[in-house]
Formats: sequence, C-alpha cells, structure tokens
Amino acid sequence: MKAYKELSKEELLTLKEELNKEYEEARAKGLKLDMSRGKPGASQLDMEMDFMNVLNTDTSFKTEEGTDCRNYGLLDGIPEARKLIGDMIGVPADNVIVCGNSSLAVMYDTISRSMVFGVMGSTPWCKLDKVKFLCPVPGYDRHFAITELFGIEMINIPMTESGPDMDMVEKLVSEDAAVKGIWCVPKYSNPQGITYSDETVRRFAALKPAAEDFRIFWDNAYAIHDIYEDRSDSLLEILSECEKAGNPDMVYEFCSTSKVMFPGSGISAVAASQPNLDGIRKTLTIQTIGFDKLNMLRHVRYFNDINGMKAHMMKHAEIVRPKFATVLEILDRELAGLEIGSWLNPNGGYFISFDALPGCAKEIVSLCKEAGVVLTGAGATYPYKKDPKDSNIRLAPTFPALDELTQATELFTLCVKIASVDKFLAEK
Amino acid sequence: MKAYKELSKEELLTLKEELNKEYEEARAKGLKLDMSRGKPGASQLDMEMDFMNVLNTDTSFKTEEGTDCRNYGLLDGIPEARKLIGDMIGVPADNVIVCGNSSLAVMYDTISRSMVFGVMGSTPWCKLDKVKFLCPVPGYDRHFAITELFGIEMINIPMTESGPDMDMVEKLVSEDAAVKGIWCVPKYSNPQGITYSDETVRRFAALKPAAEDFRIFWDNAYAIHDIYEDRSDSLLEILSECEKAGNPDMVYEFCSTSKVMFPGSGISAVAASQPNLDGIRKTLTIQTIGFDKLNMLRHVRYFNDINGMKAHMMKHAEIVRPKFATVLEILDRELAGLEIGSWLNPNGGYFISFDALPGCAKEIVSLCKEAGVVLTGAGATYPYKKDPKDSNIRLAPTFPALDELTQATELFTLCVKIASVDKFLAEK
Repeated sequence: MKAYKELSKEELLTLKEELNKEYEEARAKGLKLDMSRGKPGASQLDMEMDFMNVLNTDTSFKTEEGTDCRNYGLLDGIPEARKLIGDMIGVPADNVIVCGNSSLAVMYDTISRSMVFGVMGSTPWCKLDKVKFLCPVPGYDRHFAITELFGIEMINIPMTESGPDMDMVEKLVSEDAAVKGIWCVPKYSNPQGITYSDETVRRFAALKPAAEDFRIFWDNAYAIHDIYEDRSDSLLEILSECEKAGNPDMVYEFCSTSKVMFPGSGISAVAASQPNLDGIRKTLTIQTIGFDKLNMLRHVRYFNDINGMKAHMMKHAEIVRPKFATVLEILDRELAGLEIGSWLNPNGGYFISFDALPGCAKEIVSLCKEAGVVLTGAGATYPYKKDPKDSNIRLAPTFPALDELTQATELFTLCVKIASVDKFLAEK
Repeated sequence: MKAYKELSKEELLTLKEELNKEYEEARAKGLKLDMSRGKPGASQLDMEMDFMNVLNTDTSFKTEEGTDCRNYGLLDGIPEARKLIGDMIGVPADNVIVCGNSSLAVMYDTISRSMVFGVMGSTPWCKLDKVKFLCPVPGYDRHFAITELFGIEMINIPMTESGPDMDMVEKLVSEDAAVKGIWCVPKYSNPQGITYSDETVRRFAALKPAAEDFRIFWDNAYAIHDIYEDRSDSLLEILSECEKAGNPDMVYEFCSTSKVMFPGSGISAVAASQPNLDGIRKTLTIQTIGFDKLNMLRHVRYFNDINGMKAHMMKHAEIVRPKFATVLEILDRELAGLEIGSWLNPNGGYFISFDALPGCAKEIVSLCKEAGVVLTGAGATYPYKKDPKDSNIRLAPTFPALDELTQATELFTLCVKIASVDKFLAEK
C-alpha cells in the first residue's frame, strides 16, 4: 500500500472518484448501525439470563448476618456485596459502599456533594472563585459532561502509553490549589484501553496537592474486563498505595457491574478511606434510606465470589473477542500503510481508539452518519467536545452483531479514506 | 375513668407507685421492639414473594415498543411503567419520569438541583441570601432533614383536619419571595393520616407565589395505601388542578412503590409539567444513563395494570388493618377518659399520630426506650426536631408482629400515664 501523502493530485482525484462510488453504493444499502456507545451486545446478555432465576419464592432473602433484604435499611449495602465488589477492585469490604445501578450517578453525587458541602470539612467548591479538574485526553465524555455542568474548568492532560503525563499532573496539582480533582479510568482506559503503569499509579499516590480537598476520581470501570485469556493488564491498587504514600484520603474509587451483568440493572460502588466514607455518609443518610439490597443479593448469589465473577467475565470475553478481532482486522486490511490513521489494540475494556489525520475526525463521523453508521461524536473524547486536533474517534465494537460490525467498520475505513483524500487534495 | 387532672396529689402519688411497679415488671421482660419507622412487616413481604418469579429466563425482556430492558437507555423509564405509575397517582404517562428505588433520593435531587442550577432558568437558590420552605407540622422527618441539610429555613405550618392552614400558606407564599417551596404529604399524611380536602388542593393550585420558582413538593407517598375496604379518602389530582388554575408548572409530585412492593427494591417517580420535566432532564441526562428498567418491567408484569396494583394493596390492607385496630383498641382501653392524650384514626397510610400532654413526649419516648420499645424520636415530626409543645409522637404499627405490637402499645400507654402523672405532680 502506498501512503496517501505520496500520491499525486491526479492519483488522489482518481482515488476520490472510486471511493465516492463505493460510498454511494454503501449508502444505498440503507444501513442502520450503532458503534457509538460501550453497550454489551444482545448475545452477551442472552448468555447471562440465568441471573434472573437466582432469586425466587424459594430462596432466602436474608443476608448472612440475618438482615431481610426485602425491607428498608443498610445504607452501606449488604456485607457480602461490599465484599464481592471489594474483591473486584482489590480493596477491603469496609472501604466500600455499594450503591444503586449507576456508578455515573455516584460520581455525579460526589462532585455535587463537594460543590455544595465541601470535602471532609473543606470550603464548598461552589464558594470558590475557580475550581479546576485535570482531564486525561482522550477520555470519557460523561465524566467531562459532569464537570462542565458544574462549571468546573477542565484542563487537558495528554495520555501516554503508561497513563496520563505525570510530569504535567504533578506540576499542576502541586502548584495550583484550584485544582481539586482529576478524572481517571486507570485500567483499559476509555477510549484507548491503556492501563496505568505501576510507576504512574505510585506517582499518583505520592502527589503533593496544593489543595487539601484535592481528590483523584479513580473510575475503575473495567477492573475485570479482559478480552483475552492469555494476556491481560494488571493495575496497582490505588487506595493502599495512597495509604503507603501518606495520602490515605486522596482518592475516591468508583466501579459497577454494568458491564459484568445487565447494564442499567447492575450495582455500583464507591470505595475510599473511612474519613472519606464518613463524609459521604453524612449526606447519603439524608439522601436515601438505602439502595436496592435485593439486587445486591442477586449478584452475590449468582457469582458466589470473585472467582465466579471472573469466570463469568471470560464468557463475555469469548463473545467480545471476535468483535475486537473483526474491527482490528478490517482496520489493518484497509488502512495499514496508508498513513492516514493509527489505532491501539487493547487487552481489555470496551473501545478501540482511532486517531485520524488532524482535521478529519468530524468529517469521518459525519460521512458515516450519512451512510447509516452512528459513531461516538467527534470531539466527544475531549472536554467541551473540543478535540484540538479534530483527530480522535472512539470505536465501540461490542453492540452490533458480528456481520453488522463488519459492514460498519468497512464503511468507517472507507470514510477515513475519503476524508483523508479530501484533506490532501485541499492541501495540494 | 377519671381524668388525671381531677386527681388529688395523694391519688397521683398512689397511682404513680402502681404505675412504677407495672413499669418495672415490663422492663424486666427485656423487650426489644421497634415501632419507630413506617416499615412493612415480614408477613406483608411474605405475601408478595411471587414478585421474585415474574422475570426469569423464559420471559421476554423487551418493552411493548421493543426496547431491550436489559441494556442501557430510556432516561424517562419504560413507557409501560410510566403509565402504571401515572395511573397510580392519576396523571398521564407523559408527565412521569420513573426513577430508581427511592423517592426520597428524587426529592433530594430536586432540592439539590434547585440549589445549584435553579428552577427552569431561575437564579440558583444557593446564590440567594435566604431560601425558605413551609413545613406543615407534624410532618415527615426525612423531608425536614433534606431542607435542613441545604440550609433552607423551615417555617412551621399547623395542620388542620383538612390539610395545612391555607390562610397562612397563602399569605407567606404570596408575600415572601424567599419562600421557594412547601413539603406536602397530601394523602394519609405522615404522621397524622390526614387527606387534604378538595378545597385545600384547589387553594394550593390557585396560589399566587411571589417567587416564580416556588414549587409545591407533593409527596404522594400513600396514594393507594388504604387500610379499609369500605372507607377510604380520595385526593384531588394536583397537576390538572394547577393547570386549570393557570399554574401548570407550580408542582413536583413524587411517589414510589416502596410500600406497594418490597421497600428498598421498588421504583420511584417524579411527575410534573413538561417544562419542569425538561428542566429535570437537562441535568438528569448527565447524572445517569438511566434507571433500572428490569425492575420497572418486573413491576409492570406483576401488577399488569392499576387494577392489579389496587387489588394487591388490599392484601396489604388485610395484614395492616388488625395492627391499626390493635393499637387503637389499646389506646382506647387504656387512655380514654384520662385526658392525657389524643390520637387520630386514619383511613390509610402507615402511622397513628399521638398528641401527649404538652411537655411529655420526650419523657414518654425515653421511658419506652428504657423498657425496650423504640419509638420515633420525640420532636422528629417537626423541623429541626423541635416540637414546640413537646407533645407529638408518631406510632408506626406495621413492622412488629401482632403480639409484639400489643406488648409495645401497652408499654407505650403505661409510659404515657407515668409521664402525665409526673407532669401533674410537678404542677401541684
């Protein structure tokens, strides 16, 4: 394959004609495909339908300690669910509060609480002139939407192969007391699938923040979401690292079973030091009487323990793996050598991150949309939806069925080619 | 029975001695009973265990419109759950957003959102010097805890037999732009079991608030929670009344199935005008991807429609009815004619409200506690936990089994007598 940048204007024009023809043919098919969100596919959900039979009229509804899960109570969640979730992210049950169906809602609440009531006795953030958050980019659009909603200024931090640029993080956190937090997806990051290296985690734990109420927002969304049996990433446990480094209260960790069990009907959790959890409980006890304990019990009974949960994740992996393989194969087959895009091959998570030539992402997403394939909006992986290079596109391979995914990815690569040819032609 | 106020000092002293003896005997029993919270009893939960079998591997998980309830999506909830909840409170499905397991959390969110983001474009309440809420008293302690947490000044509004003192409500709402809301439990009110009269509801709907962002917080927690088959209260539907009166945006209505199905594993909802719902969606869509649709589906499939739900509530009523009868019978047998307390006999809800002689409530609750019977804290039914008369006590008959309830209520009446004798003696 010849790199596009080597092509003459005439070659580009000929190519453009061919590609346009292909595109019109593709558009005529009237596709209706969605590669936009990290949603499990139907076959993943079909595979776990026995979850629905776990609780029935014949089962006991009491916890091991004897609490009736059908009734009110237990603000922290049932002990066995705290244990299970703790094991999932490698922290003691005592450091976990199990919540409702959405870890996003827990993160929103955490920001909201900090804004209105402060953090462990600090000045409420809404009383400050300026609050800033560091945002490793590309990152998770819904994180950025929360901080934007609350008027928190977001600062881009470039991602490297081993996590966020820690020199920049250390400098900003230690010098600027307005920096109150950083959004992290430390394992199989959204969208790149990068896992923070041990050194990165240790540097996080050893931060010397100018603000006493600075917190790391550690969204461990893909803690056990490996794709392969024979290769997986491992992540240092941040709570204990922070404790070792003398910063026991510096982190809130979030997770959920949304992509372990049925999305939207999972359980979520926040993990932190006892002083942090006490700070959370102070308002949480006024906010709710408690979260859905029957759904916690359902999870505990279904998985039994962390081993059951990990075995279950391998069943997901079997379904997800060929989908990642399909996308990677098509990207490779269609784009290798053209020098019009680069992508990563992660060991886990839900996404493939694609970097198009600068200035092409919006056009690619728009071309795909016109031909019936919905991608995550260009720019969505950056704060304020502004990708300064207009380059990053998040591909989510899990939701479409395999044949649809093939069609969608082929269309995607076609649109990448068209946008790239247009770019080079404009530069000639 | 001779009224205590007629007794001489000697008679009171003799009585005191007898009562103290009885009390010591009761205390020796080492009771451990809880009449503090409006929790359904185990027999109510046992009766509805077939709820757990509704969804299983063989059932369809799609809504009527074809949405897969197992996956992400549908911020407003599934259409059939919106319809069911709408029918429960008498409003169209379009005006309902079905949420998570706790209506308290929805109310907290609504206050929190108003504080931080304002109401339909108004100035955020946290930017104002003063925000006030009207609180009909006695009322629900968890309402008052929310407004207290957010630093909202609470003003007591006396309850009458037909609802809050509307002269006072009208005056304060129309004259003071700092008054932004009022907490209402309009049907089978907590704790009195009073249902607002049609005239009261119409006067609410016709309020002329000084503040454009004034809202009625209409917590219709006991919409279908009748105790009797042959007598029940009915409540005018507030959304349509507000619309008729030219105030379509003046009310947020809240409800849940926490005391219809298993508490803590129910579904909750907010109902309001479209402009209000749009205001809610603006932040809700950032807060969460959606609530637990499988649990919504479980409810819809179990009840089928509002008739199924009402039939189910009659099964609860059959269990609850003898408990209310027991408490009322003992109160009547032990206290009638003594003129040391008054109480109401509601047609629904979860409580019996008891008014002791002024200055006696704290002592009664404390005496009960020492003898092993936990009641709702004295003062809890008032903002800031301050009952100006130290008189109101909320009795919750549903949780204990019938024999325990008998013991607990007998102890309660004994403690009422002791505290009252002490009061008269102190005055002699």
